[in-house]
Amino acid sequence: MYNQKRLRDYGVTIGQLQPGLHNAITDVEGVTVGHVTISEQNIQTGVTAILPHQGNLFKEKLIASSHVINGFGKTMGIIQISELGTLETPIMLTNTLSIGATADGLIEYMLKRNPEIGRTTGTVNPIIGECNDMFLNDIRSRSITKEHVWQAIENASTMFKEGAVGAGRGMLCYSLKGGIGTASRLMSMDHGTYTIGVLVLANFGILSDLTIDGNAIGMNLKEAILQSEEEKDKGSIMMIVATDLPVSEEQLNRILKRTVTGLSRTGSIITNGSGEIAIGFTTATKIPHENTKQVLSTTMVHDEDIDLAFRAVGEATEEAVLNALVTATPVIGRDGNQRPTLKDLLEKFNIKLK
Amino acid sequence: MYNQKRLRDYGVTIGQLQPGLHNAITDVEGVTVGHVTISEQNIQTGVTAILPHQGNLFKEKLIASSHVINGFGKTMGIIQISELGTLETPIMLTNTLSIGATADGLIEYMLKRNPEIGRTTGTVNPIIGECNDMFLNDIRSRSITKEHVWQAIENASTMFKEGAVGAGRGMLCYSLKGGIGTASRLMSMDHGTYTIGVLVLANFGILSDLTIDGNAIGMNLKEAILQSEEEKDKGSIMMIVATDLPVSEEQLNRILKRTVTGLSRTGSIITNGSGEIAIGFTTATKIPHENTKQVLSTTMVHDEDIDLAFRAVGEATEEAVLNALVTATPVIGRDGNQRPTLKDLLEKFNIKLK
Amino acid sequence: MYNQKRLRDYGVTIGQLQPGLHNAITDVEGVTVGHVTISEQNIQTGVTAILPHQGNLFKEKLIASSHVINGFGKTMGIIQISELGTLETPIMLTNTLSIGATADGLIEYMLKRNPEIGRTTGTVNPIIGECNDMFLNDIRSRSITKEHVWQAIENASTMFKEGAVGAGRGMLCYSLKGGIGTASRLMSMDHGTYTIGVLVLANFGILSDLTIDGNAIGMNLKEAILQSEEEKDKGSIMMIVATDLPVSEEQLNRILKRTVTGLSRTGSIITNGSGEIAIGFTTATKIPHENTKQVLSTTMVHDEDIDLAFRAVGEATEEAVLNALVTATPVIGRDGNQRPTLKDLLEKFNIKLK
Amino acid sequence: MYNQKRLRDYGVTIGQLQPGLHNAITDVEGVTVGHVTISEQNIQTGVTAILPHQGNLFKEKLIASSHVINGFGKTMGIIQISELGTLETPIMLTNTLSIGATADGLIEYMLKRNPEIGRTTGTVNPIIGECNDMFLNDIRSRSITKEHVWQAIENASTMFKEGAVGAGRGMLCYSLKGGIGTASRLMSMDHGTYTIGVLVLANFGILSDLTIDGNAIGMNLKEAILQSEEEKDKGSIMMIVATDLPVSEEQLNRILKRTVTGLSRTGSIITNGSGEIAIGFTTATKIPHENTKQVLSTTMVHDEDIDLAFRAVGEATEEAVLNALVTATPVIGRDGNQRPTLKDLLEKFNIKLK
Repeated sequence: MYNQKRLRDYGVTIGQLQPGLHNAITDVEGVTVGHVTISEQNIQTGVTAILPHQGNLFKEKLIASSHVINGFGKTMGIIQISELGTLETPIMLTNTLSIGATADGLIEYMLKRNPEIGRTTGTVNPIIGECNDMFLNDIRSRSITKEHVWQAIENASTMFKEGAVGAGRGMLCYSLKGGIGTASRLMSMDHGTYTIGVLVLANFGILSDLTIDGNAIGMNLKEAILQSEEEKDKGSIMMIVATDLPVSEEQLNRILKRTVTGLSRTGSIITNGSGEIAIGFTTATKIPHENTKQVLSTTMVHDEDIDLAFRAVGEATEEAVLNALVTATPVIGRDGNQRPTLKDLLEKFNIKLK
Repeated sequence: MYNQKRLRDYGVTIGQLQPGLHNAITDVEGVTVGHVTISEQNIQTGVTAILPHQGNLFKEKLIASSHVINGFGKTMGIIQISELGTLETPIMLTNTLSIGATADGLIEYMLKRNPEIGRTTGTVNPIIGECNDMFLNDIRSRSITKEHVWQAIENASTMFKEGAVGAGRGMLCYSLKGGIGTASRLMSMDHGTYTIGVLVLANFGILSDLTIDGNAIGMNLKEAILQSEEEKDKGSIMMIVATDLPVSEEQLNRILKRTVTGLSRTGSIITNGSGEIAIGFTTATKIPHENTKQVLSTTMVHDEDIDLAFRAVGEATEEAVLNALVTATPVIGRDGNQRPTLKDLLEKFNIKLK
Repeated sequence: MYNQKRLRDYGVTIGQLQPGLHNAITDVEGVTVGHVTISEQNIQTGVTAILPHQGNLFKEKLIASSHVINGFGKTMGIIQISELGTLETPIMLTNTLSIGATADGLIEYMLKRNPEIGRTTGTVNPIIGECNDMFLNDIRSRSITKEHVWQAIENASTMFKEGAVGAGRGMLCYSLKGGIGTASRLMSMDHGTYTIGVLVLANFGILSDLTIDGNAIGMNLKEAILQSEEEKDKGSIMMIVATDLPVSEEQLNRILKRTVTGLSRTGSIITNGSGEIAIGFTTATKIPHENTKQVLSTTMVHDEDIDLAFRAVGEATEEAVLNALVTATPVIGRDGNQRPTLKDLLEKFNIKLK
Repeated sequence: MYNQKRLRDYGVTIGQLQPGLHNAITDVEGVTVGHVTISEQNIQTGVTAILPHQGNLFKEKLIASSHVINGFGKTMGIIQISELGTLETPIMLTNTLSIGATADGLIEYMLKRNPEIGRTTGTVNPIIGECNDMFLNDIRSRSITKEHVWQAIENASTMFKEGAVGAGRGMLCYSLKGGIGTASRLMSMDHGTYTIGVLVLANFGILSDLTIDGNAIGMNLKEAILQSEEEKDKGSIMMIVATDLPVSEEQLNRILKRTVTGLSRTGSIITNGSGEIAIGFTTATKIPHENTKQVLSTTMVHDEDIDLAFRAVGEATEEAVLNALVTATPVIGRDGNQRPTLKDLLEKFNIKLK
């Protein structure tokens, strides 16, 4: 999107299924994404907002689920998602030490739009994902304010940038510059064609493990840049999954669990220090906040149809991670720290991905 | 049922809600229960079958869930229930070391009725719960055969016995004679009146902890029978929950989790060696085995309606345990082992429950 | 403690085991508790800090675990506790909409004491529990600041108040005034005597369900105060469990699961809207933050010893809830809202608990 | 082993770490594996036994854990493993509909060797894994007897065959002949060198997805054999993980979770119908059955050391699956059904893996 050179522009396609129109999470109708990027010397960080639909999410909740692949992370809000299976706020991504401020900002946003919260109805469950950008960003300064949160929501659109933007500004991935990436897949079933979209905040991995569509390019890159020091993964990845497929919470949870197949194929060994968490929702069913005093009708696919979603989410996750890598632009951050971008390395060493 | 003196016949009612017609799991339309009881000197054991509906359960599965309160147990089949949220066989209860034979018998039963299993469709997931009846039963002899399994299913009826029958034949509960108990509750909601029923195989607890409707009678009973030796709980409880309330698998799971409130109020501290497992299903939605190539429609209550089910399942579980105790009749078992029945103690010491 | 009239001062003892010296969570060596209470007209809220040991918790972590009984809650930090089984910050309790600010304050506190965080080592996992105090407190104002957080930590001591203090200031319990309560139990084993302590932030329950040591006093109280409107539980309970028993993370988790037995015996049906979460730690083993390049030695009890801890935690939880109720003092809060205290009702209607 | 041509004999090495002496699960000291293979026309099935150590496992249990990647399976025994974190029997693998008979055989085996079971101590928790071999085997005949179970245990040795043997006799993998495979990795740490070994019963996958060390060979193979019909995965994989690394149950569980990285890299999308389950144990700590009345001492690595185990288990799982494929020999089974072996296809189409 936005004229960025993405993985497919290098001639690489991942998997067997076709992507949606923009090959992005926003191919799922109603989903928008917004960034606020902060780039001021030692401060290289930001916020990314994912809006699951364009109505009042608190009043019309979506069926949602989450899955923790590795829980070395501080993500907020998934206890309630796991219990109730519903999502009632936008999903915010940011740096690890700014989760408090980001939560506070999102809460204030929700209170403004829903005067009944804390008065005639209960409270609200803010969803905040995070990764640690301490190498490029002065994370101790906790630079995110509630205004950044509101602005990211305000900026949300079906078109958005990938790479070193928003929450991805200071992130690393496979020891290279990382950040935001996205991809999508279409699922053609007897009863309709559906879309699944994935957005990742990619901040994990060890260079020598990097694999692109089966090509173990990481070991070569490591040698090329004469990187000799031992690498230690202190990263994480947040994976946001959107779909319009009619699924139950349990089916959605099973789909989220398959993000790990795509992740693994990019080379991840899921290190101890890498918080790897998937959060997803379906737009197919809206659950009213107020009790309508009636039995609710919902829809779901037969479990035999779900293999296509399992394939789709794995492919989209794999491609989203790789899109984050290839679209990332150089960032000089805290104390002059920097890491190569994959784009620059491919050019410098004249490496073809295909 | 069947002219047995139950808890309410002692003047004790548990909780606030009304029971169904028979105050039994079979108050849920379509549910039947059958026992085979084996009583031959050292062999004091049996099988109990719960049939969730009267059609072909393999072809028309029910939404199901399970919850492990304490996993010191060998129950079979709940991995698949947890993954798929469906039930496709009757639920069998028996003694711990007969789970293999019981599983084999249930598999054969399913194969006979479904010739496509293992040929044109996959396999089948048998559900077997168990408790350890080694004190009264020569459990090492593994006396259950597949014919017992088939006979228990054959015997299934809306009317069934409680106490020292079926799988409950050799069980102890609160160091007294235990076994099978049941109870039910009606749930009146804006959109209809629903039923929840619980059947327990009660084989847990320490006499001094026994509490009946808030009355800590166990300590008195322990003194009355001059029991001085230290008691050790090696028991378990299986709790089968049936309802016709339209609920999602996740909602059903949350209902199952509340069985522990009733259990706790009878005095349980949930000991290390006590496998405490709940398995439940709703008859409100049938899930076809074959993919119909269409989107499935299901129904569920609003989460705010579910408190009534939480209350109902706690009350029914509590009363089911106490019904198991008061209906249990004396059994002289392995090596002449025996334990008092609650009924006999109440009479002998002239104790009023109310 | 502090001359407050507690449950035992009414002649009621819960269970069979002896309490520790102060019958408080601080009976576990090294544990301290501090409150900040805010009481300014519509603002009736606060913060409570639990310090698991008096050293540098980030550098010397404790084995920890958590257990979600019902996940309608926003507690932060338990993903990482579940994954790693370690605790590295004090545990903070506050109101639901102040979790962001409280997290931010706790993060800043940790950063100040650990300059290597975000520089030469990774980040930190703040633990924040919460309940909804919207009836008595103007929760929408989000009144907690980071200074409150720091002050609560500063105030931590082995002696602390119960009732309408700290995070408990605005809480309700069984439709009466609730708040902070605590209790402890001694566990005498072959290899030593150990302590388990529980602190609750009690904000749950429906008056008619309240049960004190088997006495279903709630229904009578409801009639006595002529409360006729339907009650709806939008509360929650946070249960903090401390022990010096040498246990593995898995054993600790099993202990936490037994808090529900005590909770149930006070009358809880664990309603849909009540977030009920236990977090616990053992002081018996310290896990170093830095890799010592050696194999770590730990200790644990045999599983057969653990029944005593299961009994202890249930008893202490039950008594802690009841202590919260009987120590609570009147609070007139938002828009003049108030609820009776149990103490006042007992006096007014001349009710004896024993 | 046993002169079978394995993956490395084709010039392919997986990952970065060195294998143990035999590149097999039996490289972990004390572990042995035994098969019984049944090959009689329509009956093509068997049993495989994994013995975790050579002493009395019931009396000296091992720390164990399990992880369900996809729960479409009937594996027995993991409820108790999850609760207690200990293993007390050999692990048996067989076909899905023979789990009852296999459980019964294993129970009888344990009873013979431990006369106190069911008399002076409690019962025993048999561990049975399974996959569905219905295409090549007449699974409805349930051909496994308890004698087969005992013989498989009897046959256990450090040297054992891979491919179409034991429980692997009738299995398919990536639509080719599958079965038993194994691999191991050495882990060199500051405090010693440790081994991790994996044994798989591989019966999953879709041919077009098969990937060998990044080479997406499956699509080519599918075209080469002119397979046009739509493939449907009804398979499963059991992954048994052994190590001598000193780890806690929680750490072991985290290691088991990383089997999925290796699985994914062979091309799996983890289909709905594929039960994918890992069971693992460490031989580093023995837990006595009898309570010694003392505090138990255990050892564990620092979490920062665990990345090496994460890498090792992923590599060993990937190679074990590929070893199952390349060692599999042709089987003509039920109704003349058969599937090509990878070995034959590589030769026929003159395909080089490297």
